[in-house]
Amino acid sequence: MTTQELVAQIKKKKSFLCIGLDVDLQKISTHLLQQEDPIFEFNKAIIDATHHLAVAYKPNIAFYEAYGIKGWQALEKTINYLNKKYPEIFTIADAKRGDIGNTSTRYAKAFFSDLNFDSITVAPYMGEDSVVPFLEFENKHTILLALTSNRGAFDFQTKKVDGEEVYKKVLKTAQTWKNHHNLMYVVGATKAEHFVEIRKIIPNNFILVPGVGAQGGSIAEVCEYGLNENVGLLINSARGIIYASTEENFAEAAAEKAKELQQEMEGILAKM
Amino acid sequence: MTTQELVAQIKKKKSFLCIGLDVDLQKISTHLLQQEDPIFEFNKAIIDATHHLAVAYKPNIAFYEAYGIKGWQALEKTINYLNKKYPEIFTIADAKRGDIGNTSTRYAKAFFSDLNFDSITVAPYMGEDSVVPFLEFENKHTILLALTSNRGAFDFQTKKVDGEEVYKKVLKTAQTWKNHHNLMYVVGATKAEHFVEIRKIIPNNFILVPGVGAQGGSIAEVCEYGLNENVGLLINSARGIIYASTEENFAEAAAEKAKELQQEMEGILAKM
Repeated sequence: MTTQELVAQIKKKKSFLCIGLDVDLQKISTHLLQQEDPIFEFNKAIIDATHHLAVAYKPNIAFYEAYGIKGWQALEKTINYLNKKYPEIFTIADAKRGDIGNTSTRYAKAFFSDLNFDSITVAPYMGEDSVVPFLEFENKHTILLALTSNRGAFDFQTKKVDGEEVYKKVLKTAQTWKNHHNLMYVVGATKAEHFVEIRKIIPNNFILVPGVGAQGGSIAEVCEYGLNENVGLLINSARGIIYASTEENFAEAAAEKAKELQQEMEGILAKM
Repeated sequence: MTTQELVAQIKKKKSFLCIGLDVDLQKISTHLLQQEDPIFEFNKAIIDATHHLAVAYKPNIAFYEAYGIKGWQALEKTINYLNKKYPEIFTIADAKRGDIGNTSTRYAKAFFSDLNFDSITVAPYMGEDSVVPFLEFENKHTILLALTSNRGAFDFQTKKVDGEEVYKKVLKTAQTWKNHHNLMYVVGATKAEHFVEIRKIIPNNFILVPGVGAQGGSIAEVCEYGLNENVGLLINSARGIIYASTEENFAEAAAEKAKELQQEMEGILAKM
């Protein structure tokens, strides 16, 4: 998917909501557990109920790997369902991968070519040759971890290197890499005060923002400092939407919660 | 596996060789492609031919994910074969994972509990709460990326934070985390001159050393500065061993190459 197509979808749906498909069999409605593939059935119901309110879905791969082969089958079925039934949706493999060059090429092939995700999250610690193999895929997007939403972000990401924080070094350095136009970045909603500085470094790139809802970040604050002329934000909510109810009505409850967030976003976009 | 058991195996085999099982279907002997699971058959043949020369095997998970469900099946069969037939062998899931706390717990469950690997490689960028969930598993080992063997290591890892390189900050900080006795570290063989400083910070931990052979690192140099009283090194070779021949005699050729490295190691251990 091109960035222009993503922007067009955002404007059409008046939403920049991403829904995190982080499925935990211990949290989903027990009636699903009788199905052959409860994870896929859960995702399918959530997607069908919310596809008009969200522009992106983000399965975190850890939740699928934790169920072994069955988890991978559920992941394959979920991405295939999204690509077939809702091809306008932007898909994110939240995998946080990264390895030396020829190995990163393997991960890129797995998620971009075989599973056909539009994007993948990648960790920057191993530097340029660990990220560039992902950037070589045209109309695929590499979402580099910059400043994450968790407490551990302060252990290394905010330490100063050459007078500026490590995450700023990551942002500036990555902007010099080949095919850097295929980069997006992860910045946590819990770090809203940092968006002003971040937008000075990457005025044009999309930013994927986890950490609203359960983790405590605010959509209004993130938007105040993070929006750009193309909107430029994808705000993710997982637990707050997909576990809004753990009863049989979970999909409708998820849609209600997604609608609340979409309407907040619509209000913000109307003022742009 | 306990660290003591690993050390005992090293002393018994007079080897600290780790063999990287990074299987590429385009590089293996074509006669294997007629088998139902060529990746597993390749691994099985390599393991059977080299198990007395190596103390550890390290499948890089990217090579398995690149083949989707079939890749995961081959990975499961490989680790089950190792655990059943050669339980004394130390197993490493080279996955370079890491995510916020509750998500890292999922990865830890997948690789430690379900697949039953002895260890996993983890990226440090997201800090303490992304690593500690792995450290909670007793007699399982978390191998944290410190200074990697690739060129991109110089992009961020060797930049100075508070007057010392990022990778040293990672080493020192990680030594303060809960259950840090379950930590090992990755340091590339191509960075042998850094082992002196590294051993001052982590005198006792095991170091997994990729980058000998194809990447150009030297075993003798790494040992000169990296050995400790428990040996404390696992030196990995992948391509140099497993693709020593791409003909039907690949397993014997791999054993010959592994034997060369084991004998070099035996010579070094004899001088300790």
